[in-house]
Amino acid sequence: MALAKSQTAAVARVMQGVVAMRRQVEKELSATSGRAPTLEALGITNVTEVRERDPSAVMRAIEELFADAADSILRGQGLHFEVPNRTATNQLYVPELDRIVLKSKTSTRSFDSTAQVRKTAIMTRVMEMLHQVLRRNIHTTKRDLFYADVKLFRSQDESDAVLDDVACVIGCTRTSLHVVASEKGVVVGRVQFREDGDLIDCTRMGVGGKAIPPFIDKISDFRSDAEFILLVEKDAAFMRLAEDRFYNKYPCIIITAKGQPDVATRLFLRKCRDDLKLPVLGLVDADPYGLKILSVYMSGSKTMSYDSASLTTSDIKWLGVRPSDLDKYNIPEQCRLPMKASDIKYGKALLEEDFVRRNPKWYAELEAMLSSKVKAEIQALSSYGFQYLTETYLPRKLKERDWI
Amino acid sequence: MALAKSQTAAVARVMQGVVAMRRQVEKELSATSGRAPTLEALGITNVTEVRERDPSAVMRAIEELFADAADSILRGQGLHFEVPNRTATNQLYVPELDRIVLKSKTSTRSFDSTAQVRKTAIMTRVMEMLHQVLRRNIHTTKRDLFYADVKLFRSQDESDAVLDDVACVIGCTRTSLHVVASEKGVVVGRVQFREDGDLIDCTRMGVGGKAIPPFIDKISDFRSDAEFILLVEKDAAFMRLAEDRFYNKYPCIIITAKGQPDVATRLFLRKCRDDLKLPVLGLVDADPYGLKILSVYMSGSKTMSYDSASLTTSDIKWLGVRPSDLDKYNIPEQCRLPMKASDIKYGKALLEEDFVRRNPKWYAELEAMLSSKVKAEIQALSSYGFQYLTETYLPRKLKERDWI
Repeated sequence: MALAKSQTAAVARVMQGVVAMRRQVEKELSATSGRAPTLEALGITNVTEVRERDPSAVMRAIEELFADAADSILRGQGLHFEVPNRTATNQLYVPELDRIVLKSKTSTRSFDSTAQVRKTAIMTRVMEMLHQVLRRNIHTTKRDLFYADVKLFRSQDESDAVLDDVACVIGCTRTSLHVVASEKGVVVGRVQFREDGDLIDCTRMGVGGKAIPPFIDKISDFRSDAEFILLVEKDAAFMRLAEDRFYNKYPCIIITAKGQPDVATRLFLRKCRDDLKLPVLGLVDADPYGLKILSVYMSGSKTMSYDSASLTTSDIKWLGVRPSDLDKYNIPEQCRLPMKASDIKYGKALLEEDFVRRNPKWYAELEAMLSSKVKAEIQALSSYGFQYLTETYLPRKLKERDWI
Repeated sequence: MALAKSQTAAVARVMQGVVAMRRQVEKELSATSGRAPTLEALGITNVTEVRERDPSAVMRAIEELFADAADSILRGQGLHFEVPNRTATNQLYVPELDRIVLKSKTSTRSFDSTAQVRKTAIMTRVMEMLHQVLRRNIHTTKRDLFYADVKLFRSQDESDAVLDDVACVIGCTRTSLHVVASEKGVVVGRVQFREDGDLIDCTRMGVGGKAIPPFIDKISDFRSDAEFILLVEKDAAFMRLAEDRFYNKYPCIIITAKGQPDVATRLFLRKCRDDLKLPVLGLVDADPYGLKILSVYMSGSKTMSYDSASLTTSDIKWLGVRPSDLDKYNIPEQCRLPMKASDIKYGKALLEEDFVRRNPKWYAELEAMLSSKVKAEIQALSSYGFQYLTETYLPRKLKERDWI
């Protein structure tokens, strides 16, 4: 889109702060990448590092486990596996790596034990199937895996749980096992990448955008002239931004998971941010759940904590809609909603969480929300017109560097 | 993808039946299009036809309504609107048009009446906002519309209900009002189209596919060398088909709404089928809900019945997974699930519905399911290997022309 000269200057003024932040982020990320300290250098021993591994490494790991098992059987010691304990007490967060590692506590899962015989059999079978999937270089879902041997697994909970065990035994992410979750996210804006060989240009994805694929390992060669990533909670706001082609004027990449973030969108955001070294600005509802959504992108959910390294994007800025925006942008009284008792309870619990406590400005905003007992959705901005979000609110936010 | 000569011949054999059906569908659709009978020719008078109208026509209709209202006020007769009754008794299905029309029963909504003053005010305001949206040629959501005047609307139910009234007054679809639902569907395969000017090539959409946009009026210029559309209930099956690039070998377009069909996906399927004149084959779970999903694509949901013409695709073939497939493909006992009491109740209710009754083969399949009390998911096919769906099941189905 060609802009008039005066418009270009105006956009440049709006973008000044974002550009400065982008350069800062680029510097920081470049400084850490390539020379991340190793566990040895940090003096941490006796731990299992959970990270992305390529299919051949995972296959080799499974083969080694099976060779060891066969060996043990031949030695008359039966079939058993050492499974790392996945509870919180056996996890160690290494800030230098920004990664969770598993400490050395393991338990033996043995085919000899009446209590463990089923679980040992399930684990053997799951590894066999994973090897098959990896050898064909295809991907599968938890549901498919379950159906491949319903008789043995009986319920999907059983095959799901073993899947996480296998990831910990091998020390890889669940994505490395080629077991993927369903996709939900969409991306549009100033980014190009290769997906399974196809060149995807997200500036030419119409108004609907590109579906974020469940297979992050099929994505490569990110290219972009964007200055930031705009992470949007809701589909309706994404739609507005996409239809107005907001990214043409303000160079950015727009991503949404349409509510609760799914694994594929979180992986995509992380990879996109890392490869392009861009700041991430979050646009969510001004309520405790909006904040919670940002936290899932940043710190992950508890059940997948062992797999956090590839899933989390630590430094997301809270752009809006923030409780303080309601007065600042004169959001009409009738668009502000009273918080329910459950909202307040949830908000109070968030006040205790790390991701809020370590950022005093976030803490202050959340406190203000809780004392006013008022919340608002992104859509509340529509009270000033349907394009107020793209034409006034966001440009002003960017110009005033109003993120925290 | 280049196939070896022998492979090409094998694929051609598999495709014979589909190609024949495609030609048949093309002939039928060509025969009806362009010379669809008019209401006058059918001798139907005194009805309102609900159909797609372009923004300028809708704006003109709103302007005329407002001019009439002003006129009425000046004549001392106050502000009032005539609103067609939307209940079933006022609807008429015209099989020749495959479309529902509204009969002449209307009720007066008057600003003078204490009972109707609010609804009349809401209706006036909603039309004013719709005019704004249409003039800018943008789209909005029900939620945005509600937030644009929370004080007047109080709850979203009120603005939503009036929206359907306005569509009926004007005789247009809700999409013509530029009020859209959120997107959920994905498409991949042998189809190209223009979306808001961008050329979208779904053969080069990686493994994630293209998100189906909520604005069907921004899609045009469908082009395809596919022989059929494969409509898939579940995300997991879509993922398998996309990763294996099933459409490279068997030329087709693959569409899913990831469960319950949303409005955008239904509009897209209909437009895609009409413009390309392709047969549609449905791949759903072998349970009553799978069948229900096909019926929503075919006959629509009851609340939007006035808007059914652009939303429904009448002649979908049930490819699988059908109850009779379980034995035919030797689906292991353990992958067959017992139907719950609620499944059986729901299935019995479906036996009474038109879309099942008018197709004796569907009726027989559903009856067989209910008497065996057994259901199965598409994933049950994974018991023969993760690629059994794409490499064996579907090719055999196509080759044997095994759709009903």
